[in-house]
Amino acid sequence: MVIVMRENATEQQIQDVTSKLHEFGLNVHKVVGTQRTILGAIGDVSNVDHRAFKLMDGVFEVHRISEPYKLAGRIFHAEDTIIRVGDAVFGGNEVTVIAGPCSIESAEQLLTIAKAVKAAGAKVLRGGAFKPRTSPYAFQGLGVDGLKLLKEVSIECKIPTVSEVMRESQLDLVAEYVDILQVGARNMQNFPLLIEIGKTRKPVLLKRGMSARIEELLMAAEYIMAGGNYQIILCERGIRTFENYTRNTLDLSAIPVVKKLSHLPIIADPSHGTGLRNKVAPMARAAVAAGADGLLIEVHHDPEHALSDGPQSLLPQQFVSLMEQVRMIASAIGRKIE
Amino acid sequence: MVIVMRENATEQQIQDVTSKLHEFGLNVHKVVGTQRTILGAIGDVSNVDHRAFKLMDGVFEVHRISEPYKLAGRIFHAEDTIIRVGDAVFGGNEVTVIAGPCSIESAEQLLTIAKAVKAAGAKVLRGGAFKPRTSPYAFQGLGVDGLKLLKEVSIECKIPTVSEVMRESQLDLVAEYVDILQVGARNMQNFPLLIEIGKTRKPVLLKRGMSARIEELLMAAEYIMAGGNYQIILCERGIRTFENYTRNTLDLSAIPVVKKLSHLPIIADPSHGTGLRNKVAPMARAAVAAGADGLLIEVHHDPEHALSDGPQSLLPQQFVSLMEQVRMIASAIGRKIE
Amino acid sequence: MVIVMRENATEQQIQDVTSKLHEFGLNVHKVVGTQRTILGAIGDVSNVDHRAFKLMDGVFEVHRISEPYKLAGRIFHAEDTIIRVGDAVFGGNEVTVIAGPCSIESAEQLLTIAKAVKAAGAKVLRGGAFKPRTSPYAFQGLGVDGLKLLKEVSIECKIPTVSEVMRESQLDLVAEYVDILQVGARNMQNFPLLIEIGKTRKPVLLKRGMSARIEELLMAAEYIMAGGNYQIILCERGIRTFENYTRNTLDLSAIPVVKKLSHLPIIADPSHGTGLRNKVAPMARAAVAAGADGLLIEVHHDPEHALSDGPQSLLPQQFVSLMEQVRMIASAIGRKIE
Amino acid sequence: MVIVMRENATEQQIQDVTSKLHEFGLNVHKVVGTQRTILGAIGDVSNVDHRAFKLMDGVFEVHRISEPYKLAGRIFHAEDTIIRVGDAVFGGNEVTVIAGPCSIESAEQLLTIAKAVKAAGAKVLRGGAFKPRTSPYAFQGLGVDGLKLLKEVSIECKIPTVSEVMRESQLDLVAEYVDILQVGARNMQNFPLLIEIGKTRKPVLLKRGMSARIEELLMAAEYIMAGGNYQIILCERGIRTFENYTRNTLDLSAIPVVKKLSHLPIIADPSHGTGLRNKVAPMARAAVAAGADGLLIEVHHDPEHALSDGPQSLLPQQFVSLMEQVRMIASAIGRKIE
Repeated sequence: MVIVMRENATEQQIQDVTSKLHEFGLNVHKVVGTQRTILGAIGDVSNVDHRAFKLMDGVFEVHRISEPYKLAGRIFHAEDTIIRVGDAVFGGNEVTVIAGPCSIESAEQLLTIAKAVKAAGAKVLRGGAFKPRTSPYAFQGLGVDGLKLLKEVSIECKIPTVSEVMRESQLDLVAEYVDILQVGARNMQNFPLLIEIGKTRKPVLLKRGMSARIEELLMAAEYIMAGGNYQIILCERGIRTFENYTRNTLDLSAIPVVKKLSHLPIIADPSHGTGLRNKVAPMARAAVAAGADGLLIEVHHDPEHALSDGPQSLLPQQFVSLMEQVRMIASAIGRKIE
Repeated sequence: MVIVMRENATEQQIQDVTSKLHEFGLNVHKVVGTQRTILGAIGDVSNVDHRAFKLMDGVFEVHRISEPYKLAGRIFHAEDTIIRVGDAVFGGNEVTVIAGPCSIESAEQLLTIAKAVKAAGAKVLRGGAFKPRTSPYAFQGLGVDGLKLLKEVSIECKIPTVSEVMRESQLDLVAEYVDILQVGARNMQNFPLLIEIGKTRKPVLLKRGMSARIEELLMAAEYIMAGGNYQIILCERGIRTFENYTRNTLDLSAIPVVKKLSHLPIIADPSHGTGLRNKVAPMARAAVAAGADGLLIEVHHDPEHALSDGPQSLLPQQFVSLMEQVRMIASAIGRKIE
Repeated sequence: MVIVMRENATEQQIQDVTSKLHEFGLNVHKVVGTQRTILGAIGDVSNVDHRAFKLMDGVFEVHRISEPYKLAGRIFHAEDTIIRVGDAVFGGNEVTVIAGPCSIESAEQLLTIAKAVKAAGAKVLRGGAFKPRTSPYAFQGLGVDGLKLLKEVSIECKIPTVSEVMRESQLDLVAEYVDILQVGARNMQNFPLLIEIGKTRKPVLLKRGMSARIEELLMAAEYIMAGGNYQIILCERGIRTFENYTRNTLDLSAIPVVKKLSHLPIIADPSHGTGLRNKVAPMARAAVAAGADGLLIEVHHDPEHALSDGPQSLLPQQFVSLMEQVRMIASAIGRKIE
Repeated sequence: MVIVMRENATEQQIQDVTSKLHEFGLNVHKVVGTQRTILGAIGDVSNVDHRAFKLMDGVFEVHRISEPYKLAGRIFHAEDTIIRVGDAVFGGNEVTVIAGPCSIESAEQLLTIAKAVKAAGAKVLRGGAFKPRTSPYAFQGLGVDGLKLLKEVSIECKIPTVSEVMRESQLDLVAEYVDILQVGARNMQNFPLLIEIGKTRKPVLLKRGMSARIEELLMAAEYIMAGGNYQIILCERGIRTFENYTRNTLDLSAIPVVKKLSHLPIIADPSHGTGLRNKVAPMARAAVAAGADGLLIEVHHDPEHALSDGPQSLLPQQFVSLMEQVRMIASAIGRKIE
């Protein structure tokens, strides 16, 4: 922690701050400049609230110095983490695509879509069984019946799966049926859920909250990793801004930023990021061009009758075209999509 | 739902949209203007995703017409809801103040603060036992031991209490020890938790999420009310914006907006809203002047050693001064604080 | 500037950063901690872009240490600035209200409103002659004819005036007719305009830009003050956020923040801040309760036929009620409105 | 305009709204649904403030129906506008790159960079002569001397140029020396400047303001086009959000959105959009993949000594690599960079 004193701070004020730093067991290094005095505090500041010093007399600014995430950061883990789920690989040279319907609606619906997306090159099948909905009156998902359908289709099509877990009490159930546990944007800071997921050894797809800073996304990953589960795939899915033409603002610059700060793979979800079918393809291409390790794409063969998010779902044929486009983009930057 | 066709929309396009509306069982009223055709769709649109129409050829704009919250809105419940918890009343003429420490730390700490805030006029005691923390390495609260202390102090000081419940599995436990269940900002859209709380008959303090629009706050209340629990106190506690001098931006205009849209009481939390002790008093005064039904104030007798949020906690003496100020403000607008 | 090196930074990297700091003529103080090395750079950093260091190998974080505004800050000017315009005083104990129509429309309109607002206690008359409008097809104001009307009414009613200046070439003209020059939110960073206004000695009403941080508002004031014009009244008028029920989000916490950082007076504009007539009174009361030095209120005797912003204008009778309310609020916090 | 009445609206309230619509000369179509009555208002609503109706008794919602930009929209101009400046073409199949230093610093600096970027494939040279700076104490540009250098280098290297015009009084001067007039983000709503530029017939590079919605960007273009100048190149350069790791949040979804709404070309500026050199290349690639018609890239051969924005400038060799990357991306989506 670095504390910058005001230009006109008194000796007594500097002494008071120094004493308080000592109280916290910190070593203090005093740097006297021409205009200001700076106090560098060395030691374990993890339990010090830097705002406490901001309020002291004579203090101008307090700078927290920290990379509060440790397991998620590159400092102690410089090389990229690679996560393997069946044939799917996240974090390596390949750009890996997850696709499927927003909600699982029926065996026929899921099988139709699964076959289509697998044929087009998707490596993981997505499908929601428990759906977080803004309105209590909206379709809430098929629940365990949906999970069973997902498992059946997974076996039939030989494709691993991902589905959202919304509550601790569902965790064992969901973990039994799917290969990757998804934590949705609204649950990114549902800390009890993160802790429980940290106790499993299932790969996790962790979505960025719509008002989460990148650092907070990494801290959410840290919660899971602190439990010993290191297989986390991060996912940028749009943040909330004043622009309301799109449902969210897909923050693609988060991709190169996360790649620098963390060793974890990061993918992008242009379906939720834009909320509009005809914006999915350009933003999927852009995400791959920006360095994303994968994509999460909603696909539905009959989106007009989908029970949720139809308007942002691609038709299977559109998904085929998209895969062709992103294959070329991946190739242009030295990566590949099989 | 109202669908506005493009100026150059063809008859076929208008027909296609009309057919699709019929498919959803809606009646369609066609208004032909000098420049555009407008289609008004009448019927139950709760399962229609308006974006589906936005994507159709010839469509210019789609307007959802809705007040998706029903129980939380004023339409079917015009008069203000009044919630009584012991001697505390929320939603009437009185401005009711909740105060106490961020975290419960010890019997002595809690009792000291409880006596002080009650003497100064607080009607409800707050105290965190389960704490949602951004970092997994930060103090997470005393848990059930904290709840027990809260209950003891509540009895000794004859003051009702509020404490946060973070997970469904804690619900019965927390409900056993406290009088008001708090749902924190990060859990405002933890729908399973809201549903479970809706099954209880305990009063609820529901905090606005940091990226939640006012409509979404009311929809979260709707989730609880749909279960039959109508005793909800809403709480504005700051939203996330680009301004980073304050921890959040306290959106006080939400207070008159909520008072117009909903019959539920709304209070303000200037402690989290600003994150800085010396900004709490001005913003508490402002909240009351804007029409808040109450305040939630963090108080600590030794904030420099508080285990969480010390820098935003008032000292007991500061709280006494604040109560004097807000009493005068309340009086100036024809309300009272006893 | 403080540069924090990565935990695993090499001696060579530390040396490279040190050399570069020396290149800029800065003295370097090296603090070696148990985990990290911190470099404190002392000297004139006003022409150093701190991001340059952020990009160097081995660097973890760079903290700019600065109060880039000097004239606007409290360090060299601790006491409050008081600005007098006729009988109106900004920055003292009084809460001073500016009121009038959004746009000047006719002699009769302006005179009617001026008499009403003065009788109710307004000390300054506002009226727009040059209007910045989002659409080129909207009413753009009466221009110089409006200014002439404003001057006539000012003399007749013995009340000083404020009106917006949108361009450098209008400056002499507007300055000839009005007592306070208004810089609108969209021009807060129109630096050439600020520089020209800095050369005058007219009081200035400087509105916060809708995406401006508080520091940037103070930097805009600094531009004017650097030219020798110190009579600046700051104005909070709402920032742009994701909440779209209100036109903007009035950031009232900016008031106590500015009062701490700067000696300049600050007022609030709840008319633009909310955009809705029935939200103006609660937010005006809240602004005064938060410590605002004044208010800027739009009033129109026939808002349904106003040429701009009618829906956010108070009726004269509503303004009378508002003045009664804010008088009581002011009194409650030890201030007054005459 | 569509006005939705409350469910319990009275006949009198419906009549009052209808009368008021008639007062504005609008035809009213009444649609009586099972739950609500909807009033469709047909006619010229350009001078009607829809908020006026929002405030009337019995009104639930008011929907503005409009594409307030006419010249900038696709309705009356379906095909893409193509703008030619020397050999550079914006809006066609080619992706056109503008590059150069943030500020013009010297003849040698500018010539060195100009030769490098032209050799690498840039079609237009950028260079700032008048610089808008947040601080009045920062380098403000070389002014007219800078423009003269830009003209000399333009002739020597046979490359057209772009430079920012900050004020009306500079317009003739800047127009004399450069080929494309740039309007900076802070001046996107400097309406007098836009009007004056609309009177010229020079191509314009119009940057999106940092808090401007896409509709407002198009309205700013409309201001220029209303004067008869139709040669406008739009530019996405990042919006202000809560994420503060990057300087701004580059909103790449604005590119496909603008391409749909408007016939004007749109380019992206990843240098300002991210503010960090090592994020420029990924975001430049992403912008091209999303469909941008061009890029604006800051390049400096000695960024550590640049007088402004060095940390976000690419080195010439980095620019060469970037051009290779974006060439491949362009090719992958069927476009080209010569």
